[in-house]
Amino acid sequence: MPIDLAPDPAVADLAARTAAFVREAVVPVEVAHDGVVPSEAVRAELQAGAREAGVFAPHVSAEFGGHGLDMVGRAAVFEEAGYSLLGPLALNIAAPDEGNMHLLEAVATADQKQRYLAPLAAGDVRSCFAMTEPAPGAGSDPDALTTRAVRVAGGWRIDGRKWFITGADGAGFAICMARTAGEPGERGGATMFLVDADNPGMHVGRHIPTLDESLYGGHLEMEFADCVVPDEAVLGEVDLGYRYAQVRLGPARMTHCMRWLGIARRAQDIAVARAAGRRVFGSRLADLGMAQQMIADNEIDIAAARGLILQACWELDQGRSGSQSVSIAKTFTAEAVWRVVDRSLQLCGSLGVSGDILLGRFLREVRPFRIYDGPSETHRWSIARRVVGRHTAPAPAPVPA
Amino acid sequence: MPIDLAPDPAVADLAARTAAFVREAVVPVEVAHDGVVPSEAVRAELQAGAREAGVFAPHVSAEFGGHGLDMVGRAAVFEEAGYSLLGPLALNIAAPDEGNMHLLEAVATADQKQRYLAPLAAGDVRSCFAMTEPAPGAGSDPDALTTRAVRVAGGWRIDGRKWFITGADGAGFAICMARTAGEPGERGGATMFLVDADNPGMHVGRHIPTLDESLYGGHLEMEFADCVVPDEAVLGEVDLGYRYAQVRLGPARMTHCMRWLGIARRAQDIAVARAAGRRVFGSRLADLGMAQQMIADNEIDIAAARGLILQACWELDQGRSGSQSVSIAKTFTAEAVWRVVDRSLQLCGSLGVSGDILLGRFLREVRPFRIYDGPSETHRWSIARRVVGRHTAPAPAPVPA
Amino acid sequence: MPIDLAPDPAVADLAARTAAFVREAVVPVEVAHDGVVPSEAVRAELQAGAREAGVFAPHVSAEFGGHGLDMVGRAAVFEEAGYSLLGPLALNIAAPDEGNMHLLEAVATADQKQRYLAPLAAGDVRSCFAMTEPAPGAGSDPDALTTRAVRVAGGWRIDGRKWFITGADGAGFAICMARTAGEPGERGGATMFLVDADNPGMHVGRHIPTLDESLYGGHLEMEFADCVVPDEAVLGEVDLGYRYAQVRLGPARMTHCMRWLGIARRAQDIAVARAAGRRVFGSRLADLGMAQQMIADNEIDIAAARGLILQACWELDQGRSGSQSVSIAKTFTAEAVWRVVDRSLQLCGSLGVSGDILLGRFLREVRPFRIYDGPSETHRWSIARRVVGRHTAPAPAPVPA
Amino acid sequence: MPIDLAPDPAVADLAARTAAFVREAVVPVEVAHDGVVPSEAVRAELQAGAREAGVFAPHVSAEFGGHGLDMVGRAAVFEEAGYSLLGPLALNIAAPDEGNMHLLEAVATADQKQRYLAPLAAGDVRSCFAMTEPAPGAGSDPDALTTRAVRVAGGWRIDGRKWFITGADGAGFAICMARTAGEPGERGGATMFLVDADNPGMHVGRHIPTLDESLYGGHLEMEFADCVVPDEAVLGEVDLGYRYAQVRLGPARMTHCMRWLGIARRAQDIAVARAAGRRVFGSRLADLGMAQQMIADNEIDIAAARGLILQACWELDQGRSGSQSVSIAKTFTAEAVWRVVDRSLQLCGSLGVSGDILLGRFLREVRPFRIYDGPSETHRWSIARRVVGRHTAPAPAPVPA
Repeated sequence: MPIDLAPDPAVADLAARTAAFVREAVVPVEVAHDGVVPSEAVRAELQAGAREAGVFAPHVSAEFGGHGLDMVGRAAVFEEAGYSLLGPLALNIAAPDEGNMHLLEAVATADQKQRYLAPLAAGDVRSCFAMTEPAPGAGSDPDALTTRAVRVAGGWRIDGRKWFITGADGAGFAICMARTAGEPGERGGATMFLVDADNPGMHVGRHIPTLDESLYGGHLEMEFADCVVPDEAVLGEVDLGYRYAQVRLGPARMTHCMRWLGIARRAQDIAVARAAGRRVFGSRLADLGMAQQMIADNEIDIAAARGLILQACWELDQGRSGSQSVSIAKTFTAEAVWRVVDRSLQLCGSLGVSGDILLGRFLREVRPFRIYDGPSETHRWSIARRVVGRHTAPAPAPVPA
Repeated sequence: MPIDLAPDPAVADLAARTAAFVREAVVPVEVAHDGVVPSEAVRAELQAGAREAGVFAPHVSAEFGGHGLDMVGRAAVFEEAGYSLLGPLALNIAAPDEGNMHLLEAVATADQKQRYLAPLAAGDVRSCFAMTEPAPGAGSDPDALTTRAVRVAGGWRIDGRKWFITGADGAGFAICMARTAGEPGERGGATMFLVDADNPGMHVGRHIPTLDESLYGGHLEMEFADCVVPDEAVLGEVDLGYRYAQVRLGPARMTHCMRWLGIARRAQDIAVARAAGRRVFGSRLADLGMAQQMIADNEIDIAAARGLILQACWELDQGRSGSQSVSIAKTFTAEAVWRVVDRSLQLCGSLGVSGDILLGRFLREVRPFRIYDGPSETHRWSIARRVVGRHTAPAPAPVPA
Repeated sequence: MPIDLAPDPAVADLAARTAAFVREAVVPVEVAHDGVVPSEAVRAELQAGAREAGVFAPHVSAEFGGHGLDMVGRAAVFEEAGYSLLGPLALNIAAPDEGNMHLLEAVATADQKQRYLAPLAAGDVRSCFAMTEPAPGAGSDPDALTTRAVRVAGGWRIDGRKWFITGADGAGFAICMARTAGEPGERGGATMFLVDADNPGMHVGRHIPTLDESLYGGHLEMEFADCVVPDEAVLGEVDLGYRYAQVRLGPARMTHCMRWLGIARRAQDIAVARAAGRRVFGSRLADLGMAQQMIADNEIDIAAARGLILQACWELDQGRSGSQSVSIAKTFTAEAVWRVVDRSLQLCGSLGVSGDILLGRFLREVRPFRIYDGPSETHRWSIARRVVGRHTAPAPAPVPA
Repeated sequence: MPIDLAPDPAVADLAARTAAFVREAVVPVEVAHDGVVPSEAVRAELQAGAREAGVFAPHVSAEFGGHGLDMVGRAAVFEEAGYSLLGPLALNIAAPDEGNMHLLEAVATADQKQRYLAPLAAGDVRSCFAMTEPAPGAGSDPDALTTRAVRVAGGWRIDGRKWFITGADGAGFAICMARTAGEPGERGGATMFLVDADNPGMHVGRHIPTLDESLYGGHLEMEFADCVVPDEAVLGEVDLGYRYAQVRLGPARMTHCMRWLGIARRAQDIAVARAAGRRVFGSRLADLGMAQQMIADNEIDIAAARGLILQACWELDQGRSGSQSVSIAKTFTAEAVWRVVDRSLQLCGSLGVSGDILLGRFLREVRPFRIYDGPSETHRWSIARRVVGRHTAPAPAPVPA
């Protein structure tokens, strides 16, 4: 059976309906609010629209109301959702909820699924993933984890500070990563805990102001202080938190890429429409070579990113670790999307930097993706180490003189 | 007399005092307000400080209270002022006032100088330069000018719409470029007019929301409608507006470069301090090769930009047009500053995209400079045309077979 | 049926055997001769080896002794063959023969296939494709074709000069593109002719010295002067030459990409082996961040190119024109391969520029691919035009003020 | 006394005469021989021409027949000489002789000057600088020096292998760097020795084949075996070899830059002439945007490199170490020249990769400069370390929450 790049018809149909829904129902809301969801009411309205359009929560299994898309299927649908900054929220596939649903489906017990996944998949609550910490804690180096959980009668007590916890404002629960063994800097020894928002030991702190502003629920500081949780709050097994983090992170990196690829296409569409309609120096902008070069480079970047995402997703669907392909796809896509938005803005000139079109907003939103979920430098380091690890033979002998 | 790159001692002293003033008195204000001047009171306070420090309005002639710096001298001082986003405003060398002072000193009559330049140099009023227009009017292509001025008894009547007029909110007067001959798309035929803010025919419209926010007085839409001005409002001679625009634009492009070069250095300082103080994966960040590469590339970009600015400024001081060197310096500097800020932000990771340090702000502020004052593409087009114009000989004959 | 990226087992097996054959039997010959086949005897020996290994002419149908690989199958096998500069010649899939076989299978009559394709597929003769002309003739702009064919009794008379005809030295026949209608600069009107090497009107001129030297049979000047051919020499139909050129060019561009991707992987392997074995400044070179960055960027470039090639090949296999995907893949791959070889050479330092390893040779060989088969600029122009052509709607309306 | 960028009139005159001489007398020889001096006779002829034109050995003091140019003066003249690959040899300012003359003037005794410098400056002999060694010896890391010199009666005995010794074939003497104290990997402990070509202990080995071929006298392997030299062979003081190497290396890096900048200008001139004379797709190539972008980027790169070279040279002339500015200028120029030649070749299409014009030759010649005299990565590492060393303060305090 040969290689086949034709999408499954059901997936193609879902992607097409997603595309139509986003253009018709989401983009106008996005334009009206500069890409930032203004209120819970607007979120609810967008999600109601997605439900009605039959495109809601497509990644979740049918049991929890979704379409059960595998990663390759998500690649097609999420890209369409990502065509608007608000599309992922509308479909309930925005970070961090989407990654948390993925994790819960893979790791949670039946009870935990009923209690946490079901309302999350339904859009009734939101969630956050409390892993990163202020320096010198866990950041691009997860082994630096300092938040600790120690056993107490009937459960655990968690203490530590978290930083840059996306979506924490308004989240119904947090998945908190805490060290249950070892010392900061050592591999392993982390455990994941499900912590309810009303736990008196979990404190949501200030919103960290950031260049990006469209992720609903913000990026927050959190503190766990004498935060006691029962044994049933442990997600998966004790001390295996890093393994589950990988379950979440690889796919979550890819779904980020899918969504941002949608924004890249949107930026390109805006710029091309502008270039086709604008005359300058006696020519149509779209007929000037330097503009054509930017348009072509955008198209190349988008196509290359899509190919890399597909490869990584297919490997994940095959049950492989896919870590090399994920790192490659994440690094390339984050930088490609950035270049596409930057060129698109440049093509639009002063209009591009104005708030009258969304390119300045997009630029702000995509920039952090070169840092979030592993900075490009960390991924490059991992990529190189894996490559070098595969090579142990000495250099080929030189030609004899 | 050989080439000498040692700065004039008086200029060096002024630059050093500017550097000290900016670090001590301006940076704290900038940090407290995320780089955006919040009120007229703060502006007044900053300028009072600069006056006291003896660094106010250094580019203006002594007659109007300044130090009479030539372009090469400005390069040294403005870069130091630009180390903070608010430094230029403090020294009264921010765009567009600085360029307008330059233009008025070069072109205005004695009466006009007294009436417009003197209070502007003193910081008592601000001004704007009303040239660019909404598409399809004058933008990167100035010949597309559509605003018209027609002779009326004792003066002129101006009609037209302007767009992206920096500093217009609160400006005491505008220098308005209007077509007095020819049709849109034709070379020449423009005239500059001094229009007081209380002229009932000059209307300041909405603030255009933009990615950048630190230019005091915003970017605005303006309308001239039945705007009648007297003959004395003509700046220079009728129909020679484009020639005067060149008087203003070349130097103004260079002073932009100087100021933004200051921000590039600031970004590098922030990033290097961070890299020197942060440990990751068991190493100091500043000792990791990819970080070192970013730091080195920043240093190279800054040094190269400075050299190109110096060359262009020296040519302008020699009375040459300097247009090729100005285009080269402007294009390179705008892109180099952008790269430096982008790398610096990347070096700082999540902190870099947070509002807790100013790099995200800087990124927003410098991005438009690749578009303002001539997009890079327009300058490249000009550069190439001049190069090709110098070559008329056919390609060298190939080697005989 | 979902997307599947797993290669057909038979193709995977052929690719693996090709990889083994190239490493064992071809690379030593390549190293001994600096990548340039020195004689017909060596060519014959390499091809005998490939026949014996069961990997010869894999793209040709079984009828003519091959494996009948589709484009997706070629992608896997040709990349392995391209791991050595001499691999493609060994497998009889080198340019221009491979593209000519493809064209003949698609267009030739049964008689023409017997006479031209059969010996070509067997490696008994070589061929060339005589299309490009000295300026101002057909080059990156095929419409500029000046060589003419006019009807004479029982056939055609061809007159014109050709330039940069790869493989012409020693070719048993040429496929010559000549204008049979219209004037230079007009679309269409070309016809393809099969011209035997012993035709007294076909003259093979000088070898053009070039940066690359590994394409067997060189790049030559040719002249057609009173070159009379019979009606049976027409390949396909009269005046449809451009259509057939497309049949040849799209796939030929992709097979170029596949082969050069093999060289990129080889360069990376050489560099990584070197980096893993070399110590400098107290560290292993492979552990230094700047080296890791180059290694990672190579890996990303290779993966992205492979994905784009696969996409284009799959479209071609589906019977689509694939022209946009082909242009994207060709442009990206040509530049990516260049970057990979350049970085690999840099990683090897002085050894890299020495002839003691093959990286300098590779650099010379891959550089022209950014020009051959359509310069990157021409492809970008095409890519942009197709994108702009799809957009006719005006820019999205700005946010109301 | 303000900054002045106007060249000294005498230097400007010498530069202009050099430019004329190179275009008239050197370029035709270069074109006839593909940039590679074919024989001693041609070298002698070229140098005779330069002497007659009054432009010979301009960097040497008048005492030794030159013009005594300082580094800033060399920048102007050497760039003009470098307009042809053979210009530097004609003027007797090619590597490594030029650097050796510089070193000898600075360090040699009067007797050594008479014996070695005088004939070298006159072009009567050539020389080489025997420092680099095969891995794991001295390469980009000079501390790895393994060649040893030990005291014997009345002098020293040198033993060790050298690699990539430029100009060694035919050199009248070598300046050999050998360890007189410490162990490989330790700082310092090296001494320079003047070794005559007829010393029976000095053996010139094979020519290392390299991508570049225009440096007269090749790149060779050498061996010192029981090579006994008298005390008078010590250049400068014992154990201070690294200090003298710095005397030589900084200026030598800059003169390399100057010469290669000349080639960059030449490449641009060839490409622009071609673009101005070639029509494609109905336009003049020089009027197409993508071509204009390449031409403009070339111009920017050339101007920026020139500014950086000037800065570093001026610092060296002031007696400063200039090491940061030298590293910056060397790194930028090596990469800029490469980009310029690459773009110029691209602009010329297939003609560019042919040997009918010299761009393919230039590409081969300039590529190694990103490695020779310190790879870009080593310089970036040095640049970053100096920058970080200047910063010890912690990151600026964040805005209070």
